[in-house]
Amino acid sequence: MGYGYWGPNLLRNFAECADVTVRVCAERMPDRRSLARRRHPGIAITADAETILADPDIDAVVLATPVSTHYALAKAALARGKHVLVEKPMTERVAEAEELIDLARRNGCVLMVDHTFVYTGAVRRMKAIVDGGELGELHYLDAVRVNLGLFQSDADVLWDLAPHDLAIVDYLVAESPRAVSATGTAHTASGLVDVAYLTLHYASSFIAHLHVNWLSPVKIRQMLIGGSRRMLVYDDVEPSEKLCVYDRGIDVSTRESMHRTLVDYRMGDMWAPKVEMREALAVECEHFVACVRGAAEPLTGGESGLRIVRQLEAASRSLAAGGGQVPL
Amino acid sequence: MGYGYWGPNLLRNFAECADVTVRVCAERMPDRRSLARRRHPGIAITADAETILADPDIDAVVLATPVSTHYALAKAALARGKHVLVEKPMTERVAEAEELIDLARRNGCVLMVDHTFVYTGAVRRMKAIVDGGELGELHYLDAVRVNLGLFQSDADVLWDLAPHDLAIVDYLVAESPRAVSATGTAHTASGLVDVAYLTLHYASSFIAHLHVNWLSPVKIRQMLIGGSRRMLVYDDVEPSEKLCVYDRGIDVSTRESMHRTLVDYRMGDMWAPKVEMREALAVECEHFVACVRGAAEPLTGGESGLRIVRQLEAASRSLAAGGGQVPL
Amino acid sequence: MGYGYWGPNLLRNFAECADVTVRVCAERMPDRRSLARRRHPGIAITADAETILADPDIDAVVLATPVSTHYALAKAALARGKHVLVEKPMTERVAEAEELIDLARRNGCVLMVDHTFVYTGAVRRMKAIVDGGELGELHYLDAVRVNLGLFQSDADVLWDLAPHDLAIVDYLVAESPRAVSATGTAHTASGLVDVAYLTLHYASSFIAHLHVNWLSPVKIRQMLIGGSRRMLVYDDVEPSEKLCVYDRGIDVSTRESMHRTLVDYRMGDMWAPKVEMREALAVECEHFVACVRGAAEPLTGGESGLRIVRQLEAASRSLAAGGGQVPL
Amino acid sequence: MGYGYWGPNLLRNFAECADVTVRVCAERMPDRRSLARRRHPGIAITADAETILADPDIDAVVLATPVSTHYALAKAALARGKHVLVEKPMTERVAEAEELIDLARRNGCVLMVDHTFVYTGAVRRMKAIVDGGELGELHYLDAVRVNLGLFQSDADVLWDLAPHDLAIVDYLVAESPRAVSATGTAHTASGLVDVAYLTLHYASSFIAHLHVNWLSPVKIRQMLIGGSRRMLVYDDVEPSEKLCVYDRGIDVSTRESMHRTLVDYRMGDMWAPKVEMREALAVECEHFVACVRGAAEPLTGGESGLRIVRQLEAASRSLAAGGGQVPL
Repeated sequence: MGYGYWGPNLLRNFAECADVTVRVCAERMPDRRSLARRRHPGIAITADAETILADPDIDAVVLATPVSTHYALAKAALARGKHVLVEKPMTERVAEAEELIDLARRNGCVLMVDHTFVYTGAVRRMKAIVDGGELGELHYLDAVRVNLGLFQSDADVLWDLAPHDLAIVDYLVAESPRAVSATGTAHTASGLVDVAYLTLHYASSFIAHLHVNWLSPVKIRQMLIGGSRRMLVYDDVEPSEKLCVYDRGIDVSTRESMHRTLVDYRMGDMWAPKVEMREALAVECEHFVACVRGAAEPLTGGESGLRIVRQLEAASRSLAAGGGQVPL
Repeated sequence: MGYGYWGPNLLRNFAECADVTVRVCAERMPDRRSLARRRHPGIAITADAETILADPDIDAVVLATPVSTHYALAKAALARGKHVLVEKPMTERVAEAEELIDLARRNGCVLMVDHTFVYTGAVRRMKAIVDGGELGELHYLDAVRVNLGLFQSDADVLWDLAPHDLAIVDYLVAESPRAVSATGTAHTASGLVDVAYLTLHYASSFIAHLHVNWLSPVKIRQMLIGGSRRMLVYDDVEPSEKLCVYDRGIDVSTRESMHRTLVDYRMGDMWAPKVEMREALAVECEHFVACVRGAAEPLTGGESGLRIVRQLEAASRSLAAGGGQVPL
Repeated sequence: MGYGYWGPNLLRNFAECADVTVRVCAERMPDRRSLARRRHPGIAITADAETILADPDIDAVVLATPVSTHYALAKAALARGKHVLVEKPMTERVAEAEELIDLARRNGCVLMVDHTFVYTGAVRRMKAIVDGGELGELHYLDAVRVNLGLFQSDADVLWDLAPHDLAIVDYLVAESPRAVSATGTAHTASGLVDVAYLTLHYASSFIAHLHVNWLSPVKIRQMLIGGSRRMLVYDDVEPSEKLCVYDRGIDVSTRESMHRTLVDYRMGDMWAPKVEMREALAVECEHFVACVRGAAEPLTGGESGLRIVRQLEAASRSLAAGGGQVPL
Repeated sequence: MGYGYWGPNLLRNFAECADVTVRVCAERMPDRRSLARRRHPGIAITADAETILADPDIDAVVLATPVSTHYALAKAALARGKHVLVEKPMTERVAEAEELIDLARRNGCVLMVDHTFVYTGAVRRMKAIVDGGELGELHYLDAVRVNLGLFQSDADVLWDLAPHDLAIVDYLVAESPRAVSATGTAHTASGLVDVAYLTLHYASSFIAHLHVNWLSPVKIRQMLIGGSRRMLVYDDVEPSEKLCVYDRGIDVSTRESMHRTLVDYRMGDMWAPKVEMREALAVECEHFVACVRGAAEPLTGGESGLRIVRQLEAASRSLAAGGGQVPL
């Protein structure tokens, strides 16, 4: 459902999935429907989502519709026992996400959220590096995701861009954040915040910070992760070396605060591990199919979708209140 | 006074200033003194700052000593009617900065703070671009200053790195911030914050955000400025094109929030104006000399030093309190 | 004809061309045929090129087959009065290219060569800049096109990669080269040259030099053009600013050779004009259709294809002879 | 001798060498002499080279004078039994270089050429990597050294810039080139070639190619080295990761020329070894002192200087003759 900005990528990938038949694609806009028809002569294109929901032969539904429709459409699909893959963010409210998770469990349906970046070769490699202890104890994670953005009509820059990085953090970092704070401003008639900063606070000294921005002249998608043993830079704009691991850091002596000279800097080699370059969405679609077949558990299931929505809801409250911490 | 990390640059530049005689250099560490002697055979090197303060033939004093000594040394010099150029940050406390400004005024002395970046060709060019209205109304300023840092023994990363960007913001932006918020964490035995984020809040929708970090594997010194007409990127690590002005932005229609398609994106040319590449410190030293001669007013006088210290003090309070806004 | 490496792009673009019907696609490899079927359910896929040649309802043929087959297939198509768009290089021999041009003229057919880069927004913009005299008199053109290459079985790196840059030079530079020289070596059992350098010599002091390489660890696609007034860098790997025009150069005084100080360097602004980002192949396909309809003249017709083949033939002779100049 | 463009760096470094006394600096230009005086109050500055040559207490002479004077000055110094460190290129003619080598040997003097890049941490690391066999068999070396150049009055771009890369090749590559070819053009009244390409031909399939250019809008100092096991990129403009080793290449099957699919591409990790960042000239000056003391053999002695001059002489002949190979 939905053949707007992201839908075409989902349709193209599911259409190429082995042993999967894409029956119907529902889209409200006539021009988008005709585009879908031209590209996929073999697939039925309809204006009415009900066609899909009512069809008993359809096992799973993929939602690439506006955020405001996620809850109702997912609920309707799950109620009919259909598995659901829903675009991020999962819902507009925590309560809605919780209800969908409960409904899916009761009806034995797979409920998965499209946190695409978790399925990229780079993020999966980062996960292996972090879990392997190569970075040591994590000190901080700094994410920047800015560009001259596609303005959303029903979501601000926090709900639009932050889910990507929040999902990556949720996937990479074992510790759970204890609070969220956010600040930002709006510069258009829509009143939607278009420049925002979000901080995840933890019980330990770890900190995660996101900069999301629709008004940047340049496209930056960079993540820094500092660890006690090594440090990592993930630059998603880089065509080849997206991941660089630096054997750098400081070996702190207890008397360090007394004499600067007692701090020992390690400036070692840099290493750019090869990263699987396969399209993340293809990996994700296959994973969803495997989950539907009971062969796997969703890597980004309803629970992770819920955690992200909870963080976004808290962030919005913090932003509205001036940037103080909101407990999770 | 002070021949540690930054002092040598000040000494080298003043030594090459026309019509200026550098009489004495005071430094506590013996090895640094012998280095100074080897490099400057013509200049007297002493261990005792009093030698300088007591010398009636010395008109001006330059302080490149630890922050904790700025107030006492500057006060002593001003009290003896000597002009003072002091390293940033000006003092550790707002009250001390205010006292020095008052003392300088009463004794008719020049009091200037070494906000070096204000004297770079790039920042001066940015100032001309902003004042010329080329960017239109300013939307946001985002500054990142991270590297594997020189740990300070008497200042955290906020007081060490943020003054550079705060001084640039103070110089570029006409509007004054109404509040400051900051967050960050410490990862060493010293307990000094080494990763921090600082936000300047304004009455308008403008926002300024700083990321300062001593634990980054890579050196990033980038500033994004978004305006209603154009956007600018200042990358101080770039050897040549440090400044890029993008003819990009969004032309918002009032109905934009209804239909995404009503937002008109401008993706125009990029323009990298030539930037004066002369060493900023040389420009600043000559400017200080001109001020001492009464030929100019300090571009970064005590007042600007005070504003930065006030912002830093508020930032430290905000950080300690969990990141809420602290009014200025 | 041909659904190997490049064919899919041609088929996809022609399939999306308005008022164009793609009837048949011929491909020898069974697995490639099934891929084509899956992607284009509406198009007949055959193993036999003759099916296309024999079909009187087919007006035009597009050749994306191995170089060794270009001449025979194009000849057969033109002989039957079909318009032809042929992959680069046009043919393996100058005589073959001349024969095809003659045949096309006699049969009133369009004969166009797929010099894709000529249709990129960047190259078209460069053409406007050069023709507009913004660079002044051209001094040199230096092109580097290297990567870990797709080894060809029937063409060396000169015939595989150099056509791209030779076509760009042919399009941009008014003056015709008077001679070609080339050098290079082979490092595989195939004996095919995989690292090569090609120089185009002109009657004026202009010089064009190409570096083509299948054994580079990094992908570089950069072109430098030096002019008497300005200089230009075209970096095709750059996602956004592919074209940078530098207001730099030297203003030479006649006594320059006597005293270095008499040379005046201009280090002015840099300017990155906005470049049309539309897929070049889409532009080219539409252009071919327009030519077939008699609405346009091929920008890269048989004559340009012939000039490139002539230069390649001379380059191969020079390389075999040790690198001396071979007149054109 | 010589306090022009490069002399100041030599003087500064020798002045900081332990157990070395710089007695006199000779320079013809009055303004340069006063600059030297201001910077080095402790060193005698003279206009007359003879002062140095005649002084029996002076053990070694360093020549940073125009190329045309190298032979005469070095000869005079060696004749008086003084050790000599001479700027590159060693001389203007092969015969002169041979004579100096012979004279140095007869008088037991050290004769060393300032091939600075051989003393950089990056090049020394490359040497270790090549000698360690990490790259396998060398396939090619491609060097680009271009910028908006300092026009020389007595040397063209080949004799000015190529010595740097020729010296690196001479240092890294065990095999000796059997022939040289070069091409280029001149665009100024001086008639000096300002854009040139030089190729070193070897008995094996190895090839080395240099692009040197005074008319480039951008500064590029990049070297690609392709090997049978790994490939290397040396980017001297990079502030930190100057050296990148790529675990990439092709594993060729003997039937590769038949079917492209039989070529196996290795796209492995990239590794940027840490490189010693100490100023190369400091390392070189200490090495020269060690050689003078008999504690070491010159890494870049007269013989290597001679080889470079021989290659340059052959390159100039090839360029004048149209680019054909000139045997060495």
